Amino acid sequence: MGRWEPDTRGRLERAAIELYLEQGFDQTTVAQITRHAGLTTRTFFRHFLDKRDVLFVGMDELTERVAKAIAAAPAAWPAVKAAASGMNIAAAALQLRRDEAQNRRKLINTTPELRERELMAFASVAKTVAGALSERGTEERVARVTAEAALAAFRVAFEYWGEHPDRELPQLVDETLDELKRVLGSDA
Amino acid sequence: MGRWEPDTRGRLERAAIELYLEQGFDQTTVAQITRHAGLTTRTFFRHFLDKRDVLFVGMDELTERVAKAIAAAPAAWPAVKAAASGMNIAAAALQLRRDEAQNRRKLINTTPELRERELMAFASVAKTVAGALSERGTEERVARVTAEAALAAFRVAFEYWGEHPDRELPQLVDETLDELKRVLGSDA
Repeated sequence: MGRWEPDTRGRLERAAIELYLEQGFDQTTVAQITRHAGLTTRTFFRHFLDKRDVLFVGMDELTERVAKAIAAAPAAWPAVKAAASGMNIAAAALQLRRDEAQNRRKLINTTPELRERELMAFASVAKTVAGALSERGTEERVARVTAEAALAAFRVAFEYWGEHPDRELPQLVDETLDELKRVLGSDA
Repeated sequence: MGRWEPDTRGRLERAAIELYLEQGFDQTTVAQITRHAGLTTRTFFRHFLDKRDVLFVGMDELTERVAKAIAAAPAAWPAVKAAASGMNIAAAALQLRRDEAQNRRKLINTTPELRERELMAFASVAKTVAGALSERGTEERVARVTAEAALAAFRVAFEYWGEHPDRELPQLVDETLDELKRVLGSDA
């Protein structure tokens, strides 16, 4: 990819989110997005499969970074700590682009078609995280449930962040994981 | 509903699952299902919205029973114990219809369209469980993360059951929740 590509993609993403919020996802065409971004349709399709994909390409990339962080976690760390470090990578990345992340969230929550796609994406993130934990030597079923629980904490923190946009997402993820630990510990 | 309705529905469900497994979900029509069950198309649409719905109506009903079980749990029980009791209701119900549940699972796992629908259904179960916990007085964010974690344990146990059909699902759900507690406790 050339030097300006990341910005090109960012421009398309921002234009898409703006238009989706303004006039609705269904009512927006790729041609409108590219016009709004001052770019060509051809450029759009060099970056995205379709107008739904615009909102999820970043998530795929973030998932890869999460998996790498888990793989790079010290071998002595327990599975949940390794998983949490992955969630923190994702949270920090979203915090850096707070407004965009919040707008994207708002949009997905109000568009069933996007919500379905997001649930599929989260299921795939859980699978990737479980795979990364297995690679570190965690037994498979334990890896799966740890990944699912870490993702659950992340999603709950993410929803909460939507309602409390002035809080910091990484902090909320930590808090939610701590709450989960406390709650599960209270049934001993 | 008349006296024979539950059996009518069961016949349609079993006929649908058989045909979906035999010839694929996409290739199966409602007319084929009703012919296979020896019933009319009209009867089919008295019970289900469409051919996808056949596989999920039971899940909606089970969700209601889960919510009721949580509401009926002793007030002194911690949230996770109340949530677990709900999961056990669902696990016991599926165990009673093991072959059907296993076939349904196989089918959903191999049909992306059904997988999407299932993820939406699980999201809605999590919401219902969180709501039931809130009603008992659990703080909202705690209720959400507890519900998500209980569902995560359930789903992992359910997947595992698919690979080990001779195990008992309620037992697997308990084991998975215990593993989750252990894993989350190991990061203290």
